[in-house]
Amino acid sequence: MKFQTPKGTRDLMPEDAAKMQKVIDTARSVFESYGFLPLFTPAFESFELLSAKGGLGEAVKDEIYYFKDKSDRELGLRFDLTMPLARVVVSNPQIPKPFKRYAIGKVWRYDQPQAMRWREFWQADVDVIGSRSTLADAECLEAICECLNRLGFESYYIRINNRKLMQTIFGKLLGSDKEKIVGAFRTIDKLEKISEDNVKEELKSNGVSDKNIEKIFKLIKISGSNKSILSKIKKKYGENEGVKELAELLKYAKIFGIGKKLKIDLSLVRGLDYYTGLVFEVSLGEKVSCGGGGRYDNLMGVVGGASLPATGISLGLDRIVEVMKDTNLFEKRESSVKVFVANVGETIKDAINIASKLRKRGISTQTDLMDRDLTKQLEYADSSAIPYVVIVGEEELRKKKFKLKDMIKKTEVELSLMDIIRKLK
Amino acid sequence: MKFQTPKGTRDLMPEDAAKMQKVIDTARSVFESYGFLPLFTPAFESFELLSAKGGLGEAVKDEIYYFKDKSDRELGLRFDLTMPLARVVVSNPQIPKPFKRYAIGKVWRYDQPQAMRWREFWQADVDVIGSRSTLADAECLEAICECLNRLGFESYYIRINNRKLMQTIFGKLLGSDKEKIVGAFRTIDKLEKISEDNVKEELKSNGVSDKNIEKIFKLIKISGSNKSILSKIKKKYGENEGVKELAELLKYAKIFGIGKKLKIDLSLVRGLDYYTGLVFEVSLGEKVSCGGGGRYDNLMGVVGGASLPATGISLGLDRIVEVMKDTNLFEKRESSVKVFVANVGETIKDAINIASKLRKRGISTQTDLMDRDLTKQLEYADSSAIPYVVIVGEEELRKKKFKLKDMIKKTEVELSLMDIIRKLK
Repeated sequence: MKFQTPKGTRDLMPEDAAKMQKVIDTARSVFESYGFLPLFTPAFESFELLSAKGGLGEAVKDEIYYFKDKSDRELGLRFDLTMPLARVVVSNPQIPKPFKRYAIGKVWRYDQPQAMRWREFWQADVDVIGSRSTLADAECLEAICECLNRLGFESYYIRINNRKLMQTIFGKLLGSDKEKIVGAFRTIDKLEKISEDNVKEELKSNGVSDKNIEKIFKLIKISGSNKSILSKIKKKYGENEGVKELAELLKYAKIFGIGKKLKIDLSLVRGLDYYTGLVFEVSLGEKVSCGGGGRYDNLMGVVGGASLPATGISLGLDRIVEVMKDTNLFEKRESSVKVFVANVGETIKDAINIASKLRKRGISTQTDLMDRDLTKQLEYADSSAIPYVVIVGEEELRKKKFKLKDMIKKTEVELSLMDIIRKLK
Repeated sequence: MKFQTPKGTRDLMPEDAAKMQKVIDTARSVFESYGFLPLFTPAFESFELLSAKGGLGEAVKDEIYYFKDKSDRELGLRFDLTMPLARVVVSNPQIPKPFKRYAIGKVWRYDQPQAMRWREFWQADVDVIGSRSTLADAECLEAICECLNRLGFESYYIRINNRKLMQTIFGKLLGSDKEKIVGAFRTIDKLEKISEDNVKEELKSNGVSDKNIEKIFKLIKISGSNKSILSKIKKKYGENEGVKELAELLKYAKIFGIGKKLKIDLSLVRGLDYYTGLVFEVSLGEKVSCGGGGRYDNLMGVVGGASLPATGISLGLDRIVEVMKDTNLFEKRESSVKVFVANVGETIKDAINIASKLRKRGISTQTDLMDRDLTKQLEYADSSAIPYVVIVGEEELRKKKFKLKDMIKKTEVELSLMDIIRKLK
């Protein structure tokens, strides 16, 4: 009888947990440098909130972990960090605006598990609540770029689009039925998961004519420089708010020094219903998306509050860690433990004492917890890839000099405790 | 329509989230200095694992968030970090022993919410798997003490006892029925939640005679110094393994410099079924427990692995944060954001540029995201308790000197950017 992790979830063993922790720490430190404030919300929320119009839509029950508590309250594991944020903002109207918050935590979706897609995964979000200006969008994007820069990514890029623009254009093609338009968005959003033919079929079965499908695909495949795409659209559909915001975002992005990272992509619509304007998607090289976001100016209203403009972006940390592993962006490290203090004879008390001194200097230190002899202690240090061993014998204590074994180079020197600390720091 | 957090859960708003984060960071840094390795496991586990004999016992379904996924797999939110650890250890027999792991994460219990008791709460655990020596127990306790020391606690203490000792004594009173003994432990564990009379009643209804109840209460109320308790017990019940381990733990604790923090308390049995020997409970002053643990040498066997000795201890971080708030152990801080860079006229580009320079020096910086005039920007900085504002106007840019306003002292100076950085760092 061996127990396993539930389907779609996984353990992060120490080496991978340390990598994930490094990515989390980097995101946190960048977000804080921009003045985003931390917010912790529960892992689960009322189903009423999760199913409020604007999130995953009506199908939410199929896509989340849904359950009832023992008093039959309907609950669900959160599927993102945005719905909880909306709840907090609406319940705390006193928070000064703009409210810049970050959150790093796990979310859960009942998706089909596959490569780089888990049912439990980490998100790191920045959001600005209360600013209508495209400056807010640009700053969120800058913070995300700064994270990726610090982690060592170079060739990432952010696809951008505007739902207002798409709504205008789709409105002309499909008529004014908003549900039909949003439905088409949801189908087009699947382009990265299912084939182009399947997307076309789904559009057709939702009542979009062959001719319009052709037009849609011609539109979303428009390529070229940001400038040329904008001018093509302006020529074809006239000046409109969607285009204006895209141009403004590009202007601010240039000021923030991330202009070259942004690429207009008219096939980008994003699946969540709450987006109302600019939308973003972060790609690590070809085809690996590691996050996205956009404007959701109506969500506070949907959740029962006063209407408040809002924008934000979310990074998927599991994918970032996987890509960093694949592309060797993590520094090599043998072990997070720097040194093992071995005792010989009746020196356990002294070994513990020395370990305590090393720890106080910030050096990660282990001692023997098994009453083992020296050979066994050395074997353990070796099998745990601990790079140094200090040997504390009675002779050494008398001389106040200790053998420091370099377990990798297989060398040893005799040093005073002060010199050992200096060397290990 | 306003949405609330589910019953028994809560949000941590920025100020409290920062406090929790500080406690988490402290625990992590201490645990890593002892060479404990990080492990991340899923928020939920198979119900089969959670209900394995040895955890919360048969009643587990009533005490956890239980649910089924869409393929009818039985799952539950984890109620501790120990059962997942046992699963990981059993599934990964190649891990070198002793395996010292730490984990910091949320756990969930379907308890009656009350003061200092939530259904969702943070635990920070250290465990040593594979060592039978009391050294391992002592080191876990030392690491926990070091956490509490660094957080500024002074008058905390750790109650200790040994289930082996209690089993020996209770065996003499109640006979050899193991279930009856464990049941009595579970009842006595409630002493902090329900009254003494209620505990006595529950013992009685479980078939313990009045005479034995009296004897039990006389036993668990034995007080005095550790030495005198040990000698009283030895006199009454003879030398036994339980007493020997307690004496040994005290000996090692003295070496580790935490001898004075440990108090033998024979009323301590702990509620979880998996404990087999030494048990611990950490108290912050009178009556506020903030963690506990002990030996669980049989758990790996129960979970389907080879038998492996194990010990560990868990801190409840929510309570620690609450007590630290009540006793003013957190440093006062106005805002995690240090400075607001205000723009005047057409200087937004320069303001963003200066903010970016400050952030790169590690100074948490905000700029205006609302296209506001200077007065509104100053009002926002003030209401957000940001202590400094740099004013970037066209005149200032020409002179390369900027007004730095101290928002608390209501003073201002004109400084170069370099001097501003120096002052704010």
